[in-house]
Amino acid sequence: MALIVNKKIVFMLYSLLILHSFFVIAHSKKLDENKPCKRFVLYYHNILFNGTNAANATSATVANHTQLGNFNHGALVVFDDPMTKDNHLLSPPVARAQGFYFYDMKTAFNAWFSYTLIFNSSEHKGTINIMGADMMNEETRDLSVVGGTGDFFMTRGIATFRGDSVQGSYYFRLQMDIKLYECY
Amino acid sequence: MALIVNKKIVFMLYSLLILHSFFVIAHSKKLDENKPCKRFVLYYHNILFNGTNAANATSATVANHTQLGNFNHGALVVFDDPMTKDNHLLSPPVARAQGFYFYDMKTAFNAWFSYTLIFNSSEHKGTINIMGADMMNEETRDLSVVGGTGDFFMTRGIATFRGDSVQGSYYFRLQMDIKLYECY
Amino acid sequence: MALIVNKKIVFMLYSLLILHSFFVIAHSKKLDENKPCKRFVLYYHNILFNGTNAANATSATVANHTQLGNFNHGALVVFDDPMTKDNHLLSPPVARAQGFYFYDMKTAFNAWFSYTLIFNSSEHKGTINIMGADMMNEETRDLSVVGGTGDFFMTRGIATFRGDSVQGSYYFRLQMDIKLYECY
Repeated sequence: MALIVNKKIVFMLYSLLILHSFFVIAHSKKLDENKPCKRFVLYYHNILFNGTNAANATSATVANHTQLGNFNHGALVVFDDPMTKDNHLLSPPVARAQGFYFYDMKTAFNAWFSYTLIFNSSEHKGTINIMGADMMNEETRDLSVVGGTGDFFMTRGIATFRGDSVQGSYYFRLQMDIKLYECY
Repeated sequence: MALIVNKKIVFMLYSLLILHSFFVIAHSKKLDENKPCKRFVLYYHNILFNGTNAANATSATVANHTQLGNFNHGALVVFDDPMTKDNHLLSPPVARAQGFYFYDMKTAFNAWFSYTLIFNSSEHKGTINIMGADMMNEETRDLSVVGGTGDFFMTRGIATFRGDSVQGSYYFRLQMDIKLYECY
Repeated sequence: MALIVNKKIVFMLYSLLILHSFFVIAHSKKLDENKPCKRFVLYYHNILFNGTNAANATSATVANHTQLGNFNHGALVVFDDPMTKDNHLLSPPVARAQGFYFYDMKTAFNAWFSYTLIFNSSEHKGTINIMGADMMNEETRDLSVVGGTGDFFMTRGIATFRGDSVQGSYYFRLQMDIKLYECY
């Protein structure tokens, strides 16, 4: 009789321990690239100021390119660009991207970005801070989400750029696939 | 009799499991915005070089504003500014803020910062790295603390800016409320 | 008899609990500055464009220094520099460093960096994002590794700069000791 009771107890404790393990694992940090805790795909639209398009322009060149190579090396652009859910420039923006990029290679077009996504809608309020290299010749390239505030408090993750073909001499578009792996 | 012993054992194991849970939770990452592990409020003083105030100036414009809008779009300022514990410019600095900001909007004054707080006193030695958008029209705005070194080894957190009214054409002051949520 | 069985069960459960604890601790976050999960020492070589050395130059000044002080305040340099395993400029690069630095003090040479290390070899593929102050007068100075991608997915850590003596007016070299404390 005592033995039977023990088996029940042992089973119960085992179950508890296993449940407990799940709980602990859920709270411990094991990041899986394929399992972001939050993800959204947005489109970035950059219209460069050319002297006459101030009404539409969302960015402007702050420092001209240097004479090192023929790929705009050193040209530094400050932007406040709309982010949309689909790839249409005129879709209602769901966020703004504020920051800068510059070109950094002498042998190819290649850029480096640092910026903040600013959300201020009923859906999301807060910011996401991003930095990294935009190796424009790769089909996809990963930048780091290094922090967040508001709804994105303390987040981290990866922002994957996918390049559209250039749309015109003063307009380009990027798909930004934001994958967050730390959500609080 | 066996049954009584079992109850004691079960109770003991339960207690252990519960204690164990507390231990685990204490070590797992659950961040609460209201419970930073370290916090300090500092004041940032920026005196812009105007050509004649080199003795007092702590920052200078590196790239002039563009012609996009009337809100200084693109003006980029590099600074090495004193941080004080109260809001008096002449209080002894407890840290330096080294980095840059630029204005990024065509329709309003709005800035973007990236900089390092450098502590080198008996109280604190180390650095805190910060980046994010300074939406100057909001009463408070949150930037990300993305890393730290020395006493602030590997920290992360939020830096909340509170804007003072402009103090003069070449001087402005910001309250920076630094809340760290990862302390090692 | 029942008592003997109980002792065995208790012992078994204790063991389980202890093993479980080790498992949990191994997964929880306790960082020790002396125990990075990955570490490598690389050398950064910066050859500044002087108007005639385009073939060798790997960086160029994008914004000239301001008139604040005599230490290059505000000079902003964009680079795409080779990283080597030893301190020889001509050793085969194992990574590129793409980003920028600027000088920020009026009373001494002092810089601020933000950049991406890009690995694209059989050994490593991915990027590491770094930012922080380079207090050039200190023998060593720590910057923050704020994120990573690819093989360095979501990493964080410290990048310690050790300054070589200046090698010439258009060339300088830095040792970068990259210590990662979060590896996934």
